[in-house]
Parts: sequence; structure tokens; C-alpha cells
Amino acid sequence: MDVNAYMAELGQAARNAAAEMAVASTDQKNRALLATADVLDERRDVLITENQKDLQAAEASGLEPAMVDRLALTSKGIDAMIEGLKQVAALADPVGVINDLKYMPSGIQVGKMRVPLGVIGIVYESRPNVTVEAASLCIKSGNATILRGGSEAIHSNKAIAECIALGLQQANLSETAVQVVATTDRSAVGALITMPEYVDVVVPRGGKGLIERISRDAKVTVIKHLDGICHVYIDDQADLLKAEAIADNAKTHRYGTCNTMETLLVNEQIAGEILPKLARVYIGKNVELRGCAKTCQLIDEAVPAKAEDWVTEYLAPVLAIKVVESMAEAIVHINRYGSHHTDAIVTENYTKSRHFLTAVDSSSVMVNASTRFADGFEYGLGAEIGISTDKIHARGPVGLEGLTSEKYVVLGDGHIRQ
Amino acid sequence: MDVNAYMAELGQAARNAAAEMAVASTDQKNRALLATADVLDERRDVLITENQKDLQAAEASGLEPAMVDRLALTSKGIDAMIEGLKQVAALADPVGVINDLKYMPSGIQVGKMRVPLGVIGIVYESRPNVTVEAASLCIKSGNATILRGGSEAIHSNKAIAECIALGLQQANLSETAVQVVATTDRSAVGALITMPEYVDVVVPRGGKGLIERISRDAKVTVIKHLDGICHVYIDDQADLLKAEAIADNAKTHRYGTCNTMETLLVNEQIAGEILPKLARVYIGKNVELRGCAKTCQLIDEAVPAKAEDWVTEYLAPVLAIKVVESMAEAIVHINRYGSHHTDAIVTENYTKSRHFLTAVDSSSVMVNASTRFADGFEYGLGAEIGISTDKIHARGPVGLEGLTSEKYVVLGDGHIRQ
Repeated sequence: MDVNAYMAELGQAARNAAAEMAVASTDQKNRALLATADVLDERRDVLITENQKDLQAAEASGLEPAMVDRLALTSKGIDAMIEGLKQVAALADPVGVINDLKYMPSGIQVGKMRVPLGVIGIVYESRPNVTVEAASLCIKSGNATILRGGSEAIHSNKAIAECIALGLQQANLSETAVQVVATTDRSAVGALITMPEYVDVVVPRGGKGLIERISRDAKVTVIKHLDGICHVYIDDQADLLKAEAIADNAKTHRYGTCNTMETLLVNEQIAGEILPKLARVYIGKNVELRGCAKTCQLIDEAVPAKAEDWVTEYLAPVLAIKVVESMAEAIVHINRYGSHHTDAIVTENYTKSRHFLTAVDSSSVMVNASTRFADGFEYGLGAEIGISTDKIHARGPVGLEGLTSEKYVVLGDGHIRQ
Repeated sequence: MDVNAYMAELGQAARNAAAEMAVASTDQKNRALLATADVLDERRDVLITENQKDLQAAEASGLEPAMVDRLALTSKGIDAMIEGLKQVAALADPVGVINDLKYMPSGIQVGKMRVPLGVIGIVYESRPNVTVEAASLCIKSGNATILRGGSEAIHSNKAIAECIALGLQQANLSETAVQVVATTDRSAVGALITMPEYVDVVVPRGGKGLIERISRDAKVTVIKHLDGICHVYIDDQADLLKAEAIADNAKTHRYGTCNTMETLLVNEQIAGEILPKLARVYIGKNVELRGCAKTCQLIDEAVPAKAEDWVTEYLAPVLAIKVVESMAEAIVHINRYGSHHTDAIVTENYTKSRHFLTAVDSSSVMVNASTRFADGFEYGLGAEIGISTDKIHARGPVGLEGLTSEKYVVLGDGHIRQ
């Protein structure tokens, strides 16, 4: 099989479908989503049978149990996919929205119309539910998509792709609006991310290694984040009850998420009061503490942090703690060692809160709230295809709007330029 | 001289200055712009003397007269630069604007704050006034910038850079917020566009060759357009008086601009009526007409168009004309052969106008208005650093807002995630 020729074929089909999707009505797109939900419901047996093939192959090849778990498709998992499709159908259609339509001195009326990006490539790892989730967001935002899941999920993904194709058909949309790459050949990814004539944006979802590789090699824009090295800074003018609650929640609510705090910064004025209290909370939850010299003086259980602790995303019950002299030092630390994902200050001081919001260069900056709120659902986007830490195009949680662009529309009445 | 080391030095200085510019107040940025205007006014003699060196070198090296013209800096040209600085100072500051600040069900308040991009690289050709224009937009939008002008303008650009440095100084901003590359070594451009650690966005301004080269080699986002192959489609339901005025203005108002119409599409139902009239207008202005077979039947003076005429940006008194069967054919032609810059329909039909606006995939789409309106000033942006035909980040005329991004801000009162 000539993988490049195959991918170019998918690309050309996607490009053609994108022109059709761009003018599809909201109703048509919603019908495709709801019809897909119905087909998934009808085909539960097929989906589970196909998923069994992937699971057997995974076990035979010795895939680690955690990966096998993520690969499994249960009837409950199918319920969740169906529910997700209904939720996306219920969201407002971003496409065609015209903003800021204003008359200019010349008499023309100028505004911006939201339009789909075109073709979106999605590269992801084992979870087969991503196939439905990503496809639904692309359909609703009027884009065509090419999905490249993990080779270990190929049977599941192909079976899901058939359901989506039937859903699209029932809404009179081209099946090629959503295409799952049918080969497990690894060079398909390389082709997908280097054909700007067919693919406008790539969204990688998976481990840091995958995302780094794709960012390095892609010839199109990549919507991504590499790390979530998130900070909470407790100011000397913090309300200590709020500080305790936020520092606890930001670290211990979930350990494996990208918006979990990995480094706690504490102003030296209040470190002696709050750190021992926080230490009891963390130690009670078996969180390992790695601190600067001052932290280790205040917390017996803390071990000395090494240089790499300030730039590590633990994704585990481990926390780095640093005592700082001032908010200014905290901001410098965050901008230098952080990953521009999500950072919070706890303070009651008005001027400091405003300065922190402006000076911290992250995709989400918070005052008196847990970093765990950085999430498309919590931000009211209704859905999320990922979180971007880049500044270009999309930043922070990326929902339907992040999969669109804007064009200018000009309405005249025979106007010519003088 | 080690050009890469030199460029990395500029890059590091720009990165440092960017952090300062991001928190600079509107007043401080405006003071820098107005102080630069004053310094330019005081240093007219120096600027003209330095420009003479460039002009003499250009003539000695046999640069074509048109290029020498563009290089010349007159007292009137300095007036225009001063006026431009005052205009940018008068524009609203895009930075820090918070939009859509809304309460979420959890109780947190979420909004988007507009922030600078960081460091912007600008690569341009001979006109030294671009140095002031680009610098002023970057200063106002809170970005640091590295400017790489043409080697033929090096003395002029260095003299202008000194004026800007003094202006920045008077506002207590780092001189390194605006840096002009002081070497004419060609490899400086290659370095500038491949150091994502120091430069966030590159804006090339110049000929298509320059822009193609930069787009191909850049490792950062490029804000650009390659061609302006703009169309006007005259529908069978057009008001023919409006159609004539627009088709005339779009082609003949200026021949060398990127928003000039290069191909006229005419519905066959009204081609017999309008094309002979338009031909008289064009021929009266010495516009060469290249038409499809039907056009040549209707216009004696038209010569047969070749395949490449549909994809050529003439930038000259030449027009390609094609008779089409329907609006659908016009849309397919525009999306296929156009450059996604600016395209217009002339029609009185409501439904067609709405469909054209949606289906044409260009950065500006117009109804009953001349393509010549596609311009930052005409769109009310107040200034323009370029026009983008890409879909990512910025599209259409790019003003101050196009040089910024948004981050999420979250305001809580001790909120934690449940």
C-alpha cells in the first residue's frame, strides 16, 4: 500500500467534503449527530465485538493493563458517547455568526462572519471514544476531519466510523466529512501532518512525546499543549481559609489532569503560618512534598527539591513548594518555569490581583479560584477538543469556536472607493 | 560576525523587552509614540543625510529607478511618518480589554483578556517608512519587535531606529522594544524566522518571492498574503448601473494594489447587455481585456484568455473576463482559482447574496461593493500591518488586534472545584 497516495486521497476527499460542510445548515449538522447516536445505540453488539478483537490483540501483544483499560468499550461507554453526541447537537452553532457589523464613513457595512477552518486532522491514542467526540465537534463546527487513532484501537475505530458514516448519510452529508485512517502504518501520521493543501489544522491528543513529535514535524498549525505545570501563589494578603481550600483542591482533586497544581508558591510573610497547616492536609492524603530550603525548615516531612522539580509535571501525588519574597518573584518564577497553562493567585489585595492577571503569561490566569477550573465545560464552552498553551489562533480550552475562523463581510449598495 | 549569535542576542533582548511592554500602560506607549514623532521632526536633516547615503549606493549599484524612488525619504515623507505616529497614538489600546466576563454555574466569573503576542519579526523591502509604521503598531499593541528592512535602506533604517530608541527612552521603556537588524547579511532573515524561542510571529511585507521563501522556511506563524487574485461576479439579477460602477472601480481605481479585481465573472443572461458597455469603459482607460470564448464573441477587442490568466495577479491594466452560467459556477471558479483575498457579488437577489457570503472562502466577501474597500483603514481598524489570506489567527486586514491574542481570566472568591 502506498500510504502517501492513500492519505492524499483521504485529503482530497476531505477537502471536497469541507466545502459542503461549510454551507451545511445547523439542522443538517444536528441531524447527522443525532442519527449517529441512534446508529451507535443500534449497533452496540457490533461495537463491542469489534472492540473485543482490539482487546485480545492488545493482551496478546502484552500492552500494559492501564492501556488495555483505556481501550475497553463497554455498554456504559457507548451510553456516554451517545450522550456526548446529544450534548454537542444541543450547543449553539458557531458558524455564520456575524459580529460587529458596523457602518463605516464610506457607507459600507463591515462585519466578521465566523466560518469553519476547513479540514482538521486529529491524532490520538488508545481511547476509542475520542473518535466520536472529535468527530462530533468537527461536524458541528462545519469542518471535515481525518481521524488517526491508535493502531491498537483500529477495529473499534473502524466500527465507530461506520456508524458516523451512516449518521452523515441520513442527514444528506458526505460520508467523507469524517474519515478514519484505515491503515495502522505509522507513516500515515507523518503524511497527515505535512499536507497543508488538504489539512488546515492538526490537533494531537495524547502523551507529551506524541505531541512534541507532531509539533516538530507538522507543516500546518498544531493546536496543543505539552505540559500543565500549573502554579498557585499564596500572597501575604491572602485570606488563609481560601488559600488552604484552593491549594488543597488544586493539588488533590485529581492528580493526573493537566490543570492540577504542580508547584505551590508561598509568600514568606505567611509561610510560617500556612505551610504547616497545608502540610498536614497533603500528608494526610499521601502527597509527597519537595520544597526549597525555607519550606524544608517549616515542614519536617518535605524533602529538598531539585532544579528539575520546578519544571516537572508530576501528574501524581507529588508537590513542589517554594517560599518567595514577593508577588514579583512569584510572577517571574511562573513565567520562567511554568508551561503557560493555568496559574492562580490567592490574595485579597485589589491592585495585586489586577497586576497578576496582566503580568502572568498563561492561557488561564485566576484570582482566588482553583486551577482545576481550567476546562472547557467549566468555562461554558459546552465541549472541549483540547487546551492550547500557544498564543496563536486558540488559547486555553478549545471548544467549537476554536475550530472556526472569521472572515470579513462587506455589505454595500453599489459603493465604490473614492 | 556570527550572525546567528547576533540574532539570538537581539532575540533575547526582545524577549525581555516584551515582558515589560506587556504591562506598559496605554499612556506610556502613547508617550513613546509621540516622543518618537518629536525626535523625527528634530532630526529631519540627519534622516535625509543618511537616506542620501542609501540613495547614492542604490544608484551606484544600478538599482532600478522605481526601487530608488521607493527608497527616497523626503521632508514630506517624514511629515507622513510623524502623522502616522500621532494617528496610532490616538487609536484605542487593544491590550487588557476583557470581553464576555460571565458568571458560570460554579460561581466563578470567566472572561477573555486581550494580550500582546510577544515578539514580532517584520521583514520588508526598500521603503524606510515601514520602519516607523511597523514599530508604531507593535509598540501600541504591547509587543516587542525586530525589524529587518532591505539592505539598500540600511542607513535610513538605522537613523530611524535611533529616533524610535530615543522616543522609547523618554517614556521609560526599553530601547530594545524596537530593534533594527544592523547587519545586511542575508542570513539574518533565516535566523529571525527560525528562532521560535525568541520570535512569536513573522510578518513579511514585500514581493511574492520574499513571502513564499519566508513562509516555506519559517518555524513560527507567518501573517501574510501571497496574491490578491480578486473577483467581481455580476449576477443576472444585478442592478446594472451598480455593476458597471463597481466593475470599473474595482479594476481601474488603482492597478497595483492587492485588492484590485483581476478577473471579472459575468452571468451569461446579462453578458450581452453589460459586457460591451464595460468594454468601452475599460478600453477608454487602456485596460487590456483577455476573455473566454463567449467574452471574445461579445467584445471585439478582447484577446483569448489562456489557462494561466485565471490564476494571475496582473497588478497592471489587464483584466481577465469569463462568462459563467450561474452563481454556482462563479463560486466554484472563485474558490478554485482565487487567492482567498477579496471577492464580490453584484446582485439584488437576497437569497443569492446570503449564499455568496457563506460559500465564498475568502478573507473578505462583499455584496454590491468594490473590492478596493478591503483595507484596514476602510474597515475602521485605524491602521494595517498587512492583509492575511490565511485562516489561522488573523484573516483579512490586520490591525492592532491582529497583533494580539487572548487569555482566559477567572475571578473567584475562594472557589474550588467539586
